[in-house]
Amino acid sequence: MYRWASDLYPICRSITGKGINETLRYIKAILPELQIHKEPTGAKAFDWTIPEEWEINDAFIANDKGDRIVDFKKHNLHIVGYSTAIDETLDFAKLDSRLYSLPELPDAIPYVTSYYQKDWGFCLTHNQRLELRKEPDKKYRVYIDARHFAGHLTYGELLIKGKSEKEIFLSAYICHPSMANNELSSPVVATALARYLQEAPRRYTYRIVFIPETIGSIVYLSKNLKTLKEKMAAGFALSCVGDDRCYSYLSSRYANTLADRIAVHTLKQIAPDFKQYSFLNRGSDERQYCAPGVDLPVCSIMRSKFGEYPEYHTSLDDMAFISPSGLEGGFNAVKSCIEIAEANYVYKNTVLCEPQMSKRNLYPTISMKGSANGAKILMDFLAYADGTNDLIGIAEILGVCAIDLIETANALEKAGLIEKNDDL
Amino acid sequence: MYRWASDLYPICRSITGKGINETLRYIKAILPELQIHKEPTGAKAFDWTIPEEWEINDAFIANDKGDRIVDFKKHNLHIVGYSTAIDETLDFAKLDSRLYSLPELPDAIPYVTSYYQKDWGFCLTHNQRLELRKEPDKKYRVYIDARHFAGHLTYGELLIKGKSEKEIFLSAYICHPSMANNELSSPVVATALARYLQEAPRRYTYRIVFIPETIGSIVYLSKNLKTLKEKMAAGFALSCVGDDRCYSYLSSRYANTLADRIAVHTLKQIAPDFKQYSFLNRGSDERQYCAPGVDLPVCSIMRSKFGEYPEYHTSLDDMAFISPSGLEGGFNAVKSCIEIAEANYVYKNTVLCEPQMSKRNLYPTISMKGSANGAKILMDFLAYADGTNDLIGIAEILGVCAIDLIETANALEKAGLIEKNDDL
Amino acid sequence: MYRWASDLYPICRSITGKGINETLRYIKAILPELQIHKEPTGAKAFDWTIPEEWEINDAFIANDKGDRIVDFKKHNLHIVGYSTAIDETLDFAKLDSRLYSLPELPDAIPYVTSYYQKDWGFCLTHNQRLELRKEPDKKYRVYIDARHFAGHLTYGELLIKGKSEKEIFLSAYICHPSMANNELSSPVVATALARYLQEAPRRYTYRIVFIPETIGSIVYLSKNLKTLKEKMAAGFALSCVGDDRCYSYLSSRYANTLADRIAVHTLKQIAPDFKQYSFLNRGSDERQYCAPGVDLPVCSIMRSKFGEYPEYHTSLDDMAFISPSGLEGGFNAVKSCIEIAEANYVYKNTVLCEPQMSKRNLYPTISMKGSANGAKILMDFLAYADGTNDLIGIAEILGVCAIDLIETANALEKAGLIEKNDDL
Repeated sequence: MYRWASDLYPICRSITGKGINETLRYIKAILPELQIHKEPTGAKAFDWTIPEEWEINDAFIANDKGDRIVDFKKHNLHIVGYSTAIDETLDFAKLDSRLYSLPELPDAIPYVTSYYQKDWGFCLTHNQRLELRKEPDKKYRVYIDARHFAGHLTYGELLIKGKSEKEIFLSAYICHPSMANNELSSPVVATALARYLQEAPRRYTYRIVFIPETIGSIVYLSKNLKTLKEKMAAGFALSCVGDDRCYSYLSSRYANTLADRIAVHTLKQIAPDFKQYSFLNRGSDERQYCAPGVDLPVCSIMRSKFGEYPEYHTSLDDMAFISPSGLEGGFNAVKSCIEIAEANYVYKNTVLCEPQMSKRNLYPTISMKGSANGAKILMDFLAYADGTNDLIGIAEILGVCAIDLIETANALEKAGLIEKNDDL
Repeated sequence: MYRWASDLYPICRSITGKGINETLRYIKAILPELQIHKEPTGAKAFDWTIPEEWEINDAFIANDKGDRIVDFKKHNLHIVGYSTAIDETLDFAKLDSRLYSLPELPDAIPYVTSYYQKDWGFCLTHNQRLELRKEPDKKYRVYIDARHFAGHLTYGELLIKGKSEKEIFLSAYICHPSMANNELSSPVVATALARYLQEAPRRYTYRIVFIPETIGSIVYLSKNLKTLKEKMAAGFALSCVGDDRCYSYLSSRYANTLADRIAVHTLKQIAPDFKQYSFLNRGSDERQYCAPGVDLPVCSIMRSKFGEYPEYHTSLDDMAFISPSGLEGGFNAVKSCIEIAEANYVYKNTVLCEPQMSKRNLYPTISMKGSANGAKILMDFLAYADGTNDLIGIAEILGVCAIDLIETANALEKAGLIEKNDDL
Repeated sequence: MYRWASDLYPICRSITGKGINETLRYIKAILPELQIHKEPTGAKAFDWTIPEEWEINDAFIANDKGDRIVDFKKHNLHIVGYSTAIDETLDFAKLDSRLYSLPELPDAIPYVTSYYQKDWGFCLTHNQRLELRKEPDKKYRVYIDARHFAGHLTYGELLIKGKSEKEIFLSAYICHPSMANNELSSPVVATALARYLQEAPRRYTYRIVFIPETIGSIVYLSKNLKTLKEKMAAGFALSCVGDDRCYSYLSSRYANTLADRIAVHTLKQIAPDFKQYSFLNRGSDERQYCAPGVDLPVCSIMRSKFGEYPEYHTSLDDMAFISPSGLEGGFNAVKSCIEIAEANYVYKNTVLCEPQMSKRNLYPTISMKGSANGAKILMDFLAYADGTNDLIGIAEILGVCAIDLIETANALEKAGLIEKNDDL
């Protein structure tokens, strides 16, 4: 995953354009079944209109000696996303009003966009800006070789068929330029999960999308809402799943979906001090998936939540900010959610009263104080396998991890003591 | 309000009689639409019978020199309410058994009544009583010029028609003699609220009653229960709304009515340290409104709750105990409840997914870290304007005051992004 | 109760055999209406088969001098329950593998059984075992005069008819050899409760069973499940109700039955620091009564819970461990539960608004600050006697003991102010 992210890091993605296409091609090389969809500029999606495609070839600010002092080729965050073309020489005062920097993070280049209003600007570190301000009388050439044109919005979609038509949905975004946690961790973890899911037959069908944030999820929903509402059992929006600092969860609108139950149960077990955020702290595509009337059962799983770490949306969210272990942690958290979803049957006992476990070699034949401890988990599972609880429900009652109960459930099922309800 | 209270303070009110009539006439002078109703002595109201009317003209205890040492003309609390007529000279021992005083408040004259059992007595400060006890052999003339006769119970009722037939109910009592917080604050705040309500068209119809406590609310309910049950959306019993010490709320029987939701939300916002009392602490007309089978959606709003301040039901609950600012606080608390009730629509989004706010100038066109903070309240409102939450519900989820959301709701409605459900 | 327990203590009970029969005869002498039922060896009960009956006459380990160093006649815990016959001389090493002792309680003989797997063994104190281990080369004669044969499982059942067919169920076990708290406290408290219940007509019918643990309750359920499900309103499994250390409650599967409500309310009042255990801590016949599909409204009431005191299932759980006061405490806890169940009517007011209590001499005629305090409990009861709350519900709202409200309810009913719903 880290290597994939390193490969993808230099690409200048935006919500449309070459960068996103290149990124999708890279993923399709790993996941050949990935379907790439296109929607034309001007198409309507609910309240939105797909904007013109943006192509950026070069951009810089040069001083009077012709030195590129701010250069898009050096860092693609230097250009305000969707900037219009320009080639002018300006007073510093006029230029300064087009500059974006962060006084509180003076060494970071901020990430700035203006997708829906034609505009242009440059981003730079605040320290560099302060240097420029020392010579307020200088003039600068601003050059942006960019164009806006009727093109397409593109996104990827992968369907991995399972035994059931019911689906688990994973959403990754691919629209930010060179940022690592709040961009690349999302598609590379989703790609690795797709590979993992393809390794074996699954109970659920899996739908994984690689989309530009906001406009992409809105377009995708506008074209697929009916299907998604019919089929989706649970969905997880993946964002910022690559650093090592913590684990985070952001709930659906009312925190009451199967996705929420799975995510909270899983994170409680694998990272008991994980951070819980309400839907009021939303910020990525869960905003659309859980919008009123859309109402999909989606929550977000993250390492450090977007907006909560200082490096967020700056050049400091780079490849050093994420790590192989951070990505692996993000991958494992979602993989555990998937394992639990796959095993989350409703179980029902087949025998009235406690079964005689000793005749099945599931219980010690000699009864002495404490002798039955090893069989307690079996008996406790049986006590709550009453046709009303799913695996997660039983695990919550027993205070254990659902994954650790799968073996117990299988042993009891093999002994004919419980039956599982395979309905979804 | 304070002036009205000062005017009404000297009147000797009781549950029937001249005092209450005079009080109602005073209020009618301010609110000409006030209707004054009469029910005759002997009329039945549920388990109760309207008692004879009581007229008190004079009452005193005189010493052997003829000096009035306890004089109704000096303070109308000196006479036990509904005392029968007498003119006798008694030994002190016999008199003492007819005296009421409060050892724990030796300078206060207590408020004592015997409405439903013919009796007589005098109230005085405990200090004065101790003085009298020093000369146990003295004789005293007790004189009460009072009569009981078949008359009427009177009460006032004001209906302020709104757009809807659904009603908000306000209840004030007018049956105590010269006491300020636990009497006059209630009708003067109700009168001021009536005036405020008349200033503009309202969504709800308002029904405001001015009644003697207990027998008055019982009579009123016995005549109007069906209508009230059909029409009442929420009601507030006003009591002790004139001092400056605190704000208090007393719940309906199960604390689960719209009135409770409104009152708790409002007080949490305007007086976060307000005191919450359960229905077990009831003591005024909420006892009747929330009685089983009556079940009206009524709770009580107070400054210092009756029974909880030492001056309660004594001569110390005087015009110095309440204040213009205390009354204004009581008025504003109920006014805020009314504003919230009026604005408490259920809202529903009109657009699937988040609307594009920037094209409506409701969102910054440039996106940078933190740039959308100002629009967060709009987006959060939209997220929960899903047709299941009313304004209070959204405000509770967002952790803000419902009143502060009215502007947000109006902006979104104007932009066509939400619709309100006008049903009541 | 303590005398009964002393009489029963020496008997060597097991899940079948002479000891249980002798115990049932002793109880039947006190409760002549007790019915004794028999089920034959080999009969099926759900997943179980009634085992052969076990008769034990003598058992010992003798040293090379012929001295009985471990002697069943001295303490019946010395023999592993259901041991097969043997008469052999063994090396100590071979014998040692057949010995059971508790290193952590070196002076206690443990209680060990092997009901469903033919086996034999001896139990002894760990100190004695350490002595024996000092002479590893000695040989010992092991002698067990026991037999297994097609016989019966026996149990007792007592039905005390009440006004209603609805039943309250009490379960006691009679299957352990000489142990006091975790055996005899259960049947002697149940016997005393049966006597108490027979003293007067009751609203509920009472069903009391005296059964061997596990196999007994499973057999009883297999024969009576339909009836029990139809009739049982609440049931209490009695176990370890004879010591003085604490009070304990173990909930039904979801802690949501009438039995749970009664037990928690009662124990909260009579022993506010009682210990609450979830169904995960079960261990006696509640395992069967609350098994999924059985679903009877049964919880367990105990003094020190089985498994939670060190003396449990050892020779230290002897007559010194229980006491007359301990048994009385256990008896009174269940008796209070029964009193509350008997009085647990749903009450409904008959009069709209508050009734005029003073005309019924239920309220002071003179009203002065604080004068009505004595009548508060009457008024509060009336406020919640709204046809939705039973006695326990009202008591929980008022924060008092349901037993203390019975008099209040009776006074109000006598005054015609409430009616009780006699349905069960």
